[in-house]
Amino acid sequence: MGIELGPNQYGKAETRVVRIDRDSPEHRITDLNVSTQLSGDLTDTHLTGDNAKVLPTDTQKNTVYAFARDGIGEIEAFALRLARHFVDSQEPIQRARISIEQYAWERLGDHSFRRGDPATRTTTVTYDGTNAHVVSGVQGLVVLNSTDSEFWGYPRDEYTTLKESQDRILATEVNAHWRHGAHAEDWGASYEQARQALLDAFVGTYSYSLQQTLYAMGHAVLERQPNLAEIRLSLPNKHHFVVDLEPFGLANPGEVFHADDRPYGLIQGTVQRDEFKSAEDAW
Amino acid sequence: MGIELGPNQYGKAETRVVRIDRDSPEHRITDLNVSTQLSGDLTDTHLTGDNAKVLPTDTQKNTVYAFARDGIGEIEAFALRLARHFVDSQEPIQRARISIEQYAWERLGDHSFRRGDPATRTTTVTYDGTNAHVVSGVQGLVVLNSTDSEFWGYPRDEYTTLKESQDRILATEVNAHWRHGAHAEDWGASYEQARQALLDAFVGTYSYSLQQTLYAMGHAVLERQPNLAEIRLSLPNKHHFVVDLEPFGLANPGEVFHADDRPYGLIQGTVQRDEFKSAEDAW
Amino acid sequence: MGIELGPNQYGKAETRVVRIDRDSPEHRITDLNVSTQLSGDLTDTHLTGDNAKVLPTDTQKNTVYAFARDGIGEIEAFALRLARHFVDSQEPIQRARISIEQYAWERLGDHSFRRGDPATRTTTVTYDGTNAHVVSGVQGLVVLNSTDSEFWGYPRDEYTTLKESQDRILATEVNAHWRHGAHAEDWGASYEQARQALLDAFVGTYSYSLQQTLYAMGHAVLERQPNLAEIRLSLPNKHHFVVDLEPFGLANPGEVFHADDRPYGLIQGTVQRDEFKSAEDAW
Amino acid sequence: MGIELGPNQYGKAETRVVRIDRDSPEHRITDLNVSTQLSGDLTDTHLTGDNAKVLPTDTQKNTVYAFARDGIGEIEAFALRLARHFVDSQEPIQRARISIEQYAWERLGDHSFRRGDPATRTTTVTYDGTNAHVVSGVQGLVVLNSTDSEFWGYPRDEYTTLKESQDRILATEVNAHWRHGAHAEDWGASYEQARQALLDAFVGTYSYSLQQTLYAMGHAVLERQPNLAEIRLSLPNKHHFVVDLEPFGLANPGEVFHADDRPYGLIQGTVQRDEFKSAEDAW
Repeated sequence: MGIELGPNQYGKAETRVVRIDRDSPEHRITDLNVSTQLSGDLTDTHLTGDNAKVLPTDTQKNTVYAFARDGIGEIEAFALRLARHFVDSQEPIQRARISIEQYAWERLGDHSFRRGDPATRTTTVTYDGTNAHVVSGVQGLVVLNSTDSEFWGYPRDEYTTLKESQDRILATEVNAHWRHGAHAEDWGASYEQARQALLDAFVGTYSYSLQQTLYAMGHAVLERQPNLAEIRLSLPNKHHFVVDLEPFGLANPGEVFHADDRPYGLIQGTVQRDEFKSAEDAW
Repeated sequence: MGIELGPNQYGKAETRVVRIDRDSPEHRITDLNVSTQLSGDLTDTHLTGDNAKVLPTDTQKNTVYAFARDGIGEIEAFALRLARHFVDSQEPIQRARISIEQYAWERLGDHSFRRGDPATRTTTVTYDGTNAHVVSGVQGLVVLNSTDSEFWGYPRDEYTTLKESQDRILATEVNAHWRHGAHAEDWGASYEQARQALLDAFVGTYSYSLQQTLYAMGHAVLERQPNLAEIRLSLPNKHHFVVDLEPFGLANPGEVFHADDRPYGLIQGTVQRDEFKSAEDAW
Repeated sequence: MGIELGPNQYGKAETRVVRIDRDSPEHRITDLNVSTQLSGDLTDTHLTGDNAKVLPTDTQKNTVYAFARDGIGEIEAFALRLARHFVDSQEPIQRARISIEQYAWERLGDHSFRRGDPATRTTTVTYDGTNAHVVSGVQGLVVLNSTDSEFWGYPRDEYTTLKESQDRILATEVNAHWRHGAHAEDWGASYEQARQALLDAFVGTYSYSLQQTLYAMGHAVLERQPNLAEIRLSLPNKHHFVVDLEPFGLANPGEVFHADDRPYGLIQGTVQRDEFKSAEDAW
Repeated sequence: MGIELGPNQYGKAETRVVRIDRDSPEHRITDLNVSTQLSGDLTDTHLTGDNAKVLPTDTQKNTVYAFARDGIGEIEAFALRLARHFVDSQEPIQRARISIEQYAWERLGDHSFRRGDPATRTTTVTYDGTNAHVVSGVQGLVVLNSTDSEFWGYPRDEYTTLKESQDRILATEVNAHWRHGAHAEDWGASYEQARQALLDAFVGTYSYSLQQTLYAMGHAVLERQPNLAEIRLSLPNKHHFVVDLEPFGLANPGEVFHADDRPYGLIQGTVQRDEFKSAEDAW
């Protein structure tokens, strides 16, 4: 009595599928990490171990590979195909969430490649049989401004020792995910435009706080693409501390820094367009 | 127009504080990783870089160290002290969320220790000036049953190749977090009881699916502590595949396994007590 | 001209084999990560791609699984079986090096286990058709003394700012590997004795430098086992810095520390028994 | 008796120094991870804890920062400066080994950068008061050929099940380190040439084994730079397995692959120039 099953989902995480398109002498490579999560009428397996409604996670993995046989294309489109398949073909499944990471390769030759850009393109698609939410994103995009960043004017309490700075390094690892209020016509172009907007705003913002830079970055992405509903950014402040060289009789006018690991500031925020409904289900 | 700031928070992540209690010849050690996140009236810093309401993350770090000077005690209590301090002392701050990981050390001598149990005890406390939600948890608790696990009776579609199993290894890394509907009298005893309930249910459940084991584990935790409102579990299925030794003329009656890395099943679910209100803010 | 092939080896790294002994109601688990490396008459494959002498790494993996079918036992013995097999059965192979990591599990029930001790037991066996060198070891054994450690009396140059300490935390992650001058009668007992000697010496040494502790640890291991030829230790100094609480009006008599990540001191040294010949091939 | 101290060294590992050259509006960034290791007359600290000859690792860290104040330049030159300083200024120190990793940044603007190429440039300099060995290298350079790779003609024993392949993906993460027999006139140009030679040889070699590709890569590096004495390569075979789609009625002509994690082949080899003496001390 009183104890019951709540929200739940299950699936196969991190299926590493690589597709080589070899229909021309110049091969193309698509390198993905695909995770599937299904939810629906799954009470039986939790309460009694009756698996009659549990499409095996192994089958989900197989489906990823089989669908890749037809070509992958943009990751948002591939995720949509997978999400619709699971919900539409499995009666007990009422929602599918497909998350994909795409790794970047640079061309070295007709059939030769090297891992390039350490940043990862991502998508999460959530389909409930009617609506398909699409979130696109980028992770691991590390950027640094060596000046044009200040931090001062903050409140001081008894535990405040930080000195104000009129010139500091501002560095972060951009983790940004944006929700499409309406589906894009060209997922690839949309991604490239968003990524470029993030970089442009980071570079172009004279910053008094990482929060200010965060907002500028989010605003720039939404401004360029009217169909984007919101963007969520998580920006660790990758601290670079000026090393005190005075004990060695040396000045250090912002030249020599220690890149610290932990702790780190962590700034998280959302920029949103007010004409779109919120959609917590999409995340 | 139409683009605006949405939900946001900021803080200092991963302050690594170690406290040695040395008031008796037998020292005690407390080893924590503390993250603080504040939210409130922070629009100015996002829009203009005016930091008048932004208590520096450096100050938050200092506060963790200063509060540790008075003793740490149970991590839930320490997080409550910190959360209340930030909200009660900083007028613009309306919510503080404090997350702590505690690492286990075993005693080797009066003032000697070794890192023990690889599992980590955790807490997240969220305080909004009125209510303080407390979530406790455990992460990285790896367990394995070498029999008493089956998996069969699942639906088959065109992509299903998995063979049914009447005897398999069931292994997972328990990541479980439970919300206290009312504060515990003894946080440490509550944690130990929950952790033991998780282990007991994992060991004691003859399993037809990892979902069934998940529910049994969550149910056991809630059953023993009536003040717990809900528990959320995330259980990766750490696959151990029976190696086919037939090509070498050898039978393999469930003795030799390959421990695989990726992909892996991922089972996530909540078990809840219906007399408590839900509290998404707590997570 | 003048460019030629030098030393080389190849093999299969990180075969994750788990064996369940289920010949009694109380199952036993052995969980290993096995790497094999072969060298010998392998010039052809390097110069022309002729693989006539290249036993596939896939075959090496299969061999690990097949040999596990007969039981694993102590990892040194299992590595010896594998090493001898490859050299004795493959004419072009003149040397095999087998490295194994063993993960610790604690019993929870007759057929239930949990991952326990985060430290890993290791071995590397090198066999050249005549001699079989055996190195045993332990990795990831994290230990801490909260007092009885000093550091002072060091030379000062123009870049020295460190303050002397008469009471500091001494913490390290023990990575130690010892070579058996003669094979042990009981590999498991030998390992336990060595591991205990490392802990006893760490706990029992009043330390003026981590080097002193390193030597004491190595000496203790060799002293208890006359057949050990040498031990190599690599000890990162896991710095715990006393936090300066004076700005907050608080004393900090060695109670509150910051556990730092990088940089870290790294102390490496060998303790050896002079009656044994050196054997670089063993490492 | 008979137990004695053997080879030993100590130092500061992973000092993360970032230098911004800001003498022109177009800033430049140098981002390094520097490790120092000293050895010499260090018996006292091991046996008695007398630290009179132990230059603190903290001082070594300070020295890295202070030397960065004068500019860093090429990492080989910076390592040489540091190595000579420690040996020449500290009488008991007879050898210094300085290892540096350099992280790549791409320019986004006059004072804006992003982390680019995931591969890392490295050096290890070893100086004994007379000779300075310089090893340069690259780590984490991940490359893939989607065809022009075969593997067949290998010996078969009772544990061999691998099928021969006339067309497979060949992928690896290049970890290569080359020793300069004579110091380069331009360390940066030498590095770029070596890195390019590795890529060219990987792309240009029709491969019957990863060993053949390894030798071709090493040979190409040495061939272009007559002053290089040897190169050591460690190449994990990043397996991409063709997924069997037949159960789904689909052919898979080398299009859909599973990128596997473990186990993996590991191919290690040296290519050397015979007119240079070997120098184990350099590694």
